[in-house]
Parts: sequence; C-alpha cells; structure tokens
Amino acid sequence: MSDFLARLAAIVGPQHLLTNDIDTAPYTLDWRRRYQGVPLAVARPGSTAKVSEVVKLCRAHKVAIVPQGGNTSTCGAATPDGSGRQLVLALRRLNAIRHVDTDNNALTVEAGVTLLEAQQAAEAAGRLFPLSLASQGTCQIGGNLSTNAGGVAVLRYGTMRELTLGLEAVLPDGRVLNQLQGLRKDTTGLDLKQLFIGAEGQLGLITAATLKLYPLPSAHATAMVGVDDIETAIDWLNRLRHRFGDRLTAFEVMDASCQQVLRRHHPSLMPFSAPWLILIELSDGGDPAPLNDALVEWLSVQTMADGVVSQNETERRKLWTLREEISESQRKDGPSIKHDIAVPTSALPRLVRDCAADLDQAFPGVRIVAFGHAGDGNLHYNVSYTRPGNADLFDDEDAVNAIVYDHVYRLGGTLAAEHGVGQLKKDWLARYKDPLALELMRTIKAALDPDGLMNPGKWL
Amino acid sequence: MSDFLARLAAIVGPQHLLTNDIDTAPYTLDWRRRYQGVPLAVARPGSTAKVSEVVKLCRAHKVAIVPQGGNTSTCGAATPDGSGRQLVLALRRLNAIRHVDTDNNALTVEAGVTLLEAQQAAEAAGRLFPLSLASQGTCQIGGNLSTNAGGVAVLRYGTMRELTLGLEAVLPDGRVLNQLQGLRKDTTGLDLKQLFIGAEGQLGLITAATLKLYPLPSAHATAMVGVDDIETAIDWLNRLRHRFGDRLTAFEVMDASCQQVLRRHHPSLMPFSAPWLILIELSDGGDPAPLNDALVEWLSVQTMADGVVSQNETERRKLWTLREEISESQRKDGPSIKHDIAVPTSALPRLVRDCAADLDQAFPGVRIVAFGHAGDGNLHYNVSYTRPGNADLFDDEDAVNAIVYDHVYRLGGTLAAEHGVGQLKKDWLARYKDPLALELMRTIKAALDPDGLMNPGKWL
Repeated sequence: MSDFLARLAAIVGPQHLLTNDIDTAPYTLDWRRRYQGVPLAVARPGSTAKVSEVVKLCRAHKVAIVPQGGNTSTCGAATPDGSGRQLVLALRRLNAIRHVDTDNNALTVEAGVTLLEAQQAAEAAGRLFPLSLASQGTCQIGGNLSTNAGGVAVLRYGTMRELTLGLEAVLPDGRVLNQLQGLRKDTTGLDLKQLFIGAEGQLGLITAATLKLYPLPSAHATAMVGVDDIETAIDWLNRLRHRFGDRLTAFEVMDASCQQVLRRHHPSLMPFSAPWLILIELSDGGDPAPLNDALVEWLSVQTMADGVVSQNETERRKLWTLREEISESQRKDGPSIKHDIAVPTSALPRLVRDCAADLDQAFPGVRIVAFGHAGDGNLHYNVSYTRPGNADLFDDEDAVNAIVYDHVYRLGGTLAAEHGVGQLKKDWLARYKDPLALELMRTIKAALDPDGLMNPGKWL
Repeated sequence: MSDFLARLAAIVGPQHLLTNDIDTAPYTLDWRRRYQGVPLAVARPGSTAKVSEVVKLCRAHKVAIVPQGGNTSTCGAATPDGSGRQLVLALRRLNAIRHVDTDNNALTVEAGVTLLEAQQAAEAAGRLFPLSLASQGTCQIGGNLSTNAGGVAVLRYGTMRELTLGLEAVLPDGRVLNQLQGLRKDTTGLDLKQLFIGAEGQLGLITAATLKLYPLPSAHATAMVGVDDIETAIDWLNRLRHRFGDRLTAFEVMDASCQQVLRRHHPSLMPFSAPWLILIELSDGGDPAPLNDALVEWLSVQTMADGVVSQNETERRKLWTLREEISESQRKDGPSIKHDIAVPTSALPRLVRDCAADLDQAFPGVRIVAFGHAGDGNLHYNVSYTRPGNADLFDDEDAVNAIVYDHVYRLGGTLAAEHGVGQLKKDWLARYKDPLALELMRTIKAALDPDGLMNPGKWL
C-alpha cells in the first residue's frame, strides 16, 4: 500500500492526500452521524485529469473508491466502510464555474461547486438555477447529481435529472466521458448521462455538468393557507395548476403535528393552525402586483380554514422560514424515525390515513410528523414516541419502517423519493424493489464496473 | 422455420401473423420510401403477455425482431433488412388507454396507442398531453418513446423522455419489466426507463408507458413576426422567456427560402415576408384576453420588420397551418437533402451563417430551406439545387452532409436532434459521435441483449 499511497500523493499533491485520523475525520462520519467509516486515505484531486489518473491507479491496485461531495448524504452514501481499505475521493477542489452561456440558458460547473455557488453563478448572469435544498450551502453539484436531488422547486422545474443537459464523468477504467454539449434535443444514441445521475457514484465519478438555467423571476406571490384535510390540499394543487400553470412554483404541506413542533420552537412565526397548512408560491416575470392580486383573487373564492398572503419580501421570508425550520425544530424535539417517501399524488390521502391508523394501532400514542412536497407526492414522514419515553425508539425502527413501506408500496410508491438509498436503505431496497429491476441494475453495474471498485457497499 | 411460424401463429392468432408479400407490404417500406425490407413475417401480438411469449420464442430460435409502431420513422428505424430472416413485430394492437389519473396528472397507455389518441384521452379528462408532431395521427407512443420524439412544444414541456414517468418493457429475454408507477420522484436505484427511451428498440420492446399530463390551457396568444436576422430571433426568445416564463409554449422560425416555398404553395396564407419569421405562442389558464393584451403590449415596444397577432381561433389556426405546411410544400417543390440538427441555442447564428457560406462555395446557387424549433436550438435544414436541375441531388448527399455535420459538431451539436438515427444516419453517427460514448452504448447493448436480436442492423 505504501507504493500506492506514494503514487497517489504524486498525482494529487502530498498536501491533498490525507492519511492521519485527525485529517480524515471530517470525511468519515456521515451527516446524520449514523455511519462512521475507516478510510485508507482521503485524496483531493484538483482536476478531472487528476481524477482520471487516480481512478486508473486505483484500478491497477484494486482499491475501491468512495466519492464524496459536501458529505450531506442522509443515507450514508458517501461514507467508507470500516475496512480501512477504501479511498475517499473528495471532489471539492473541482470547483470551477467553467462556462455560463446565457443565450443557451446553460451553466457548466464542476462537481465540487456547491449548490449555492451554482445558484449564485446563475443569478450573476441574470438567470435562475432552480434546484433548492436545505443543505445548499454545503452540498455539491456532484452529490446532487449522484442522488438525483429534489427539494422545494421540483413541482415546477423537475429534479436534478431534469435540470441536467450534459455530464462529464470518469469511468471505472479511468477514461473521461465528456458529454457537456448543452443540447436540448439529441437523439444520437443512448442518453448516457442518465446512467450516472442517481447512481450514487457506483458506475463512475461525475466531474462536471452542464445545467439548465431559467429566467430569474421578478415577481413572487406567497401564501400560507389552512385546509381541513389532505384531499382538499390535492384538489387545490390541481386547481392552482389549472389556473396558474407553471407559475405555481411551490406547494408544500405540513400536518397538525408538524405545526405543533414549529409552534413550540417558533411561536411568533406561526400565523394560525389547521389540520393541514399549505405553503403556496407563484413566480413570474413582469411586475409583482398583478401576480399578488391574481392569487388574492383566486383565494378569495375558496373555502379554507384560514389564510394569509405575504404583502412584502419580509412577510414572504417569514413564511418560508417556517418551512425551512421544520427539520431543525424537529431535531430539538428529539429523535425520530425518518422516511422520505413518495406515492402518486392521487394516493397521498390514502397513504396518510391508512398509515397513521396502522401505526397508531401498533404503537398507541405514536407521533407522526408529516410535511413536504405534496405537489410531487413526496412526504417527509417522521415517527417518534412509539413508546412512553423515547429511549427505545430505534428498537422499533424496523417495525415502523415495515408498516410505512408496506403502505407505500401497496400504493405504487417509493421508499426513497429524493434522498437516495446509500447504506441506510439498501436492505429495504432489496425487500421492496422489483427483483427484476434490481437484477438489471446489477447487470449494468457488472458491465461498467466489472471490478466493483466504484463506491462498493452501497445498494448496487 | 415452419415450426417457428406455427408456434408464432399459435401465440398471436393465425389472423395476426402475416406472411405473404401483399399483407406484409405496408410494414416493409419506410415512410420516406428509402428503405425496403424483406421480413420473415409480420406478427401483431395483442397484449404485453403475448409480446413476451413472442420474444421468448424468437430467442429460442435466434430470430431477430424489428419492432414497429406507426411506421413513420424518417430514418428507417422500423424497417427490416433484406434478409427475409427478421420478424417485424407490429404493436398497434396494444392500443388500450389503461388508466387516467387526473389527481396525479398521469396517463397510462399502451405502446400502440397513436399520439393523437393519447392527446384525446388526456383532453377528455380535462388535461393536456403536450407532445405534438406532424405525424401524430399515425405515429404511436412506442415509437415516440423509442426515438425520444420532440416537436413544437419541447421548449415548454420537454421531449418524450421528460414527459415519461414510467415504462413497461419486454426485455430481450422475454421477461416483463413493469415500472408504470407514475412517481415524480424516485431515487431507488438506476432510472431504468432511460435505457429504453431513445434506444430505437435495440434494448427491449416498450409495451406501455405512464405519461405526464398538464393542465389544459384555456388561453392562447399567437403571433407571427418578422426580424432581420437569427441573432435577433435568439434575443427575442430569451426576452420572451424572461417576461412570460413557461407561458411561452412555442417559438418556431423559418428563413426567407422557407417563406418562398410556402408562398408558392399557400400564397393567401403568408402574412408578409422578412429575413426570418418567428411564430410565437403563449398559453395559460384563465381568460384569453389579458394574455393577448400582454403579448400585444410586449410586441408594441419591439423593433421588428412586421408582425401580426391572431385575434381569434381562425387566425390562430391560419398561422399554425403555415408552420405545419412547410414539409408538404417542400415535398411539392422536389427532393432535398434533409438534416435534423441541433446546436446550443447560442450557436445557432454561427451555424446558420457559416454553413450557408460553405455550402454556397461548394455548390454555387444551392438552396437552403431552414426552419424549426429555434427555442431548442433545433433546425430542420434542407439542401437542394446543388447543381442546375435536381437530377443528381443525392449524388451530392455525402458531400453536403459532411459540410453541414462538420459545422454542427464544431459547434457542439448533434446530427439527430429529434428524428433518431435508424439506418439513415448510422454511418454518420460512427463518424461524428465520440467513440467512447459509442463503446459504452455497445457495452450496455451486449449486457442486455447478448444475442443481438433486438432490432439489429440499426446503429447499435
């Protein structure tokens, strides 16, 4: 191994090869602190060419590679195992904004650029890069691509997959595939970029991407409204889309428990309560006033528990702060068994009802905090207080997951809507995912990465 | 083979196995009449289960399969070779509208449903399925998926790939992969549907799909305007998107030659002429009047050669008829060497200028008719009169293609934007596409279809 490390140091530069425990520590513990790995080393190459050299060296020495961006995976997708034999490849030094093409509405960035930096590069060019996540100051484009990240703007702009025009990736044999053309239409063969998006680094290493840009909206209209049930929320979603089309850029919901948690930690922010609160945002070019008027007019003829439309940017930020503070407020409230689930939007009401009934029967007094991106059929569904006190919560994790995922799959849903699978859900994936689909994925993995050196120990 | 055919007849029903030349004729000649095949037979299975049985039988007998939908490929992608040994599998009998889920804005249809039937099923449910093509009355969803079809609404709604939530496909070994869930977010592993979209049937047979629906617009505002150059057109595109966001649903251009062709065959339809005409359409929910007013107001402060905004549905149809009649008018004008090219939108002006200069130098007096989806960087670029008279036009096809494609690839473009590759462009693909990308595609082909029985003789 010392020969390997010496060669590695020669490639990335000695100061970018971390081998002692103190230096490697930030790269070995996952964001939720559930996975702690022991790496062979952490290498921080500074260019695509260097990544290519590192991959070729690893292949020659049969060393497995765990790629890592901002290390914000909620599923342990970027954490090495405990063997001390996996190399963590940190991509942060690939942080160039390579090209902004305003006429083509495209932005080419390297994998280590943070989501926030990509957003800022777009804004500096008078454009919007719409992916928006809680961790955007830290998470990196390579990770966003590898998990096909979602967030609060998917309803309007799609997930990371739909926001990507092209990729550059280092293949498992070290060769560099460059498909950064930035075309909106191309039918010359298979769309190879799709293989790497959402693959969590198991088929190769994404080193750069060409992303879609959109016009920067000049008008927003934002409202928080209360409705009596989730069916009404879905009805509103469809009627708002019918009236406003894709000016409807956000449609987020939170249930009564979620509101209680928020009220406990942010009493002054909560406008009112209702069985379900909906955060609605419209965005558009042109003047803000007509958009706000149109939303107020639309709301004025609806039946609702209560509602407020923001009158200025401060009020708008206040409504969004509520949405953004959910996770942190929950954390303060203690641990919970978290689920990142999606079903067809039409099935959300049944999921919410049936799942709560079964959980309540299995664990009387259980608390469910449900919130998220109802417009995508995607709920963050967090379970706690399975028993009096919370000491044994994670003892019940498997039983809770089985109840939740049984309902999700019965309704044609998924156990990983936008956070990926990583280590956390790989056993659950094996249990719920169609075996034929898994077999096909493994066939492709074997064809592209025959030595199995790309992020092993995850779900593939 | 008689044993094979007897078994095949038993699976699909004798009346759905066509073996004599008269019966098979409609399936053996491509739409542009450039490819004439000789099939072993034409089988028309009536269900996914039957398709699966046919594929298993073919695999046992090592018989190659050429899937065919509406037989409208412009590249010979659905035509068998001349060996008399390939089975044409016509999918028209898989024509069920399986499910319309309005709350989830999803439509599940079988592969043999025509695009028009899918549009109508959506409209009957008060929704829009936005893919829109000249051949929509004939082309089928399976073919639209297999070529990742585009058309006039891509600017706003994306290509067929982006309109697809899930697929059902029969794999090369006959097993059925069902991924029709209709989820908008799913990060449980590789997105397998991407493998089959745009693969022209070379990795398996698509038998059904779950497609995205959108609100049915209640308002349209449509204008035809003339501008002096393509740069101005691109500038308008970006400013219209900035002002109207995704209410801008079409942005089509036609050059002066294209206008001449139209004027010759539809003199009464042509409103005026200009170096470039742009067809602009906005769509929205709500009332039409404010949308029309907004477009008129926006146009009133622009500098343009001339312009007209439609005042009613008849006038609107007239403007669209012009766009739709281009191909037919050209056909009446005689043959042309056709290209379906795309570059980054920002590179369109250079492409138009440089390519015309080089063609004119090589073939003085050459006629170029350019029109298409400028919003996607996609032009249909047709070349004729390479010499006095048109007798030898196709003798110059290779030379013309080389000039056009050299420019396209120098600018980071593609030689097949929305029509696919098929037989027509496979040699050109081999010449211009990155060899590493082609190698990767072949690796995947070998892994999924090791016997090479799925639509052989095309580009993979």
